[in-house]
Amino acid sequence: MPITLYDLAGADPALRFSPYCWRTRLALAHKGLAVEAVAWRMTEKDRIAFSGQGRVPVLVDGEKALCDSWAIADYLDEAYPDRASLFGGSAGRAHARFINGWADEILNPGIARLVLTDIASVLDAKDRAYFRQTREQRFGLPLEQVVAGREERVVTWRAQLAPVRNVLARQPWLGGAAPDYADYILLGSLQWPRCVSRFALLEEDDPVAEWQRRGLALFDGLLGKAKRV
Amino acid sequence: MPITLYDLAGADPALRFSPYCWRTRLALAHKGLAVEAVAWRMTEKDRIAFSGQGRVPVLVDGEKALCDSWAIADYLDEAYPDRASLFGGSAGRAHARFINGWADEILNPGIARLVLTDIASVLDAKDRAYFRQTREQRFGLPLEQVVAGREERVVTWRAQLAPVRNVLARQPWLGGAAPDYADYILLGSLQWPRCVSRFALLEEDDPVAEWQRRGLALFDGLLGKAKRV
Repeated sequence: MPITLYDLAGADPALRFSPYCWRTRLALAHKGLAVEAVAWRMTEKDRIAFSGQGRVPVLVDGEKALCDSWAIADYLDEAYPDRASLFGGSAGRAHARFINGWADEILNPGIARLVLTDIASVLDAKDRAYFRQTREQRFGLPLEQVVAGREERVVTWRAQLAPVRNVLARQPWLGGAAPDYADYILLGSLQWPRCVSRFALLEEDDPVAEWQRRGLALFDGLLGKAKRV
Repeated sequence: MPITLYDLAGADPALRFSPYCWRTRLALAHKGLAVEAVAWRMTEKDRIAFSGQGRVPVLVDGEKALCDSWAIADYLDEAYPDRASLFGGSAGRAHARFINGWADEILNPGIARLVLTDIASVLDAKDRAYFRQTREQRFGLPLEQVVAGREERVVTWRAQLAPVRNVLARQPWLGGAAPDYADYILLGSLQWPRCVSRFALLEEDDPVAEWQRRGLALFDGLLGKAKRV
């Protein structure tokens, strides 16, 4: 039985854009595990109720059902120890937690403020109403006001990537000589706006953009060939 | 022959406060290596000219002379492989690069903007003139203007520690179950304002402050017993 991933989709079921689901897609590819990534919409809470919560990624591997991208990566390294490691051992895992926390707490909220309206526009009607209501409550503003002035604000957002540039000046991947889960965290974050928006987050000559282009080619172009708006 | 560290000192030679030298002090303690940490002043470039550059930490171990805290940590793990590892292997090292980059690019510049005047006030007369001139050139403002409004700005600075809190909610140290070089990077950063200033960067009930208190006790109180203003 293949592994199943419940994967956030837009009105177009081929459009997949959740940063957290992309982390899992990349982790599965790194482990060389086949997956059936089934389209799932934000309001289809009943379809993943078996996981005990209402967000994706949700992974089903035989009898096991898991949620949360970090817990799924942990599971994959433990359940498939003979395949390439995602974390490279306990210190690699411990330190990757920081990169995961930085992406979740700093990077992703900043991306949301740049592309919220673009996300809304790719959703089907029911999800769009749900998304607008929950996000406007979270940000305390209409989505259009949150996103306003993004051409100027993106400069500040880019400055927050300084630690990534610092690393890439010294090694080709966040994982060192080869990509690992640390790279997939950040590639997942950048795949999110890449799929839903034509707004350019990175300048072409940014070392982070150069690294992203190499990431797009990984696993036979898993990210690079993905559907975009 | 013991290892020698050229360690930035204030007018009071017992006051040691460089975040980068503290990284090295903690790394040496982790490896169980004795060190003679000799007081060095910013303007004593001639005393470390043998290292090929003008900043500390500079470490001398027998015939070897090294500069740059990261390169020194690398050297210690390679030269003393039988002692406790600082990085926990190649992935641990690769991912710690990000934490190091984050501290250097985001955290430390923010700390400087909060305590520049306090740093100046602990230096001897010659260093103080040098420090004021070089830092006012770097920031494009008198030190007093850079530091102005710190009571308000520290709130923004604290928010940048969100990734650390995210990690500490899930594991006791950045290194996982036990402290490693990832922790020493951040403990070094926080030791810097702790030694030169009475300005409170962290709120007492911040999980980062709780972690720092545990860090102050490491290695028989290496950080906790250090001289402060």
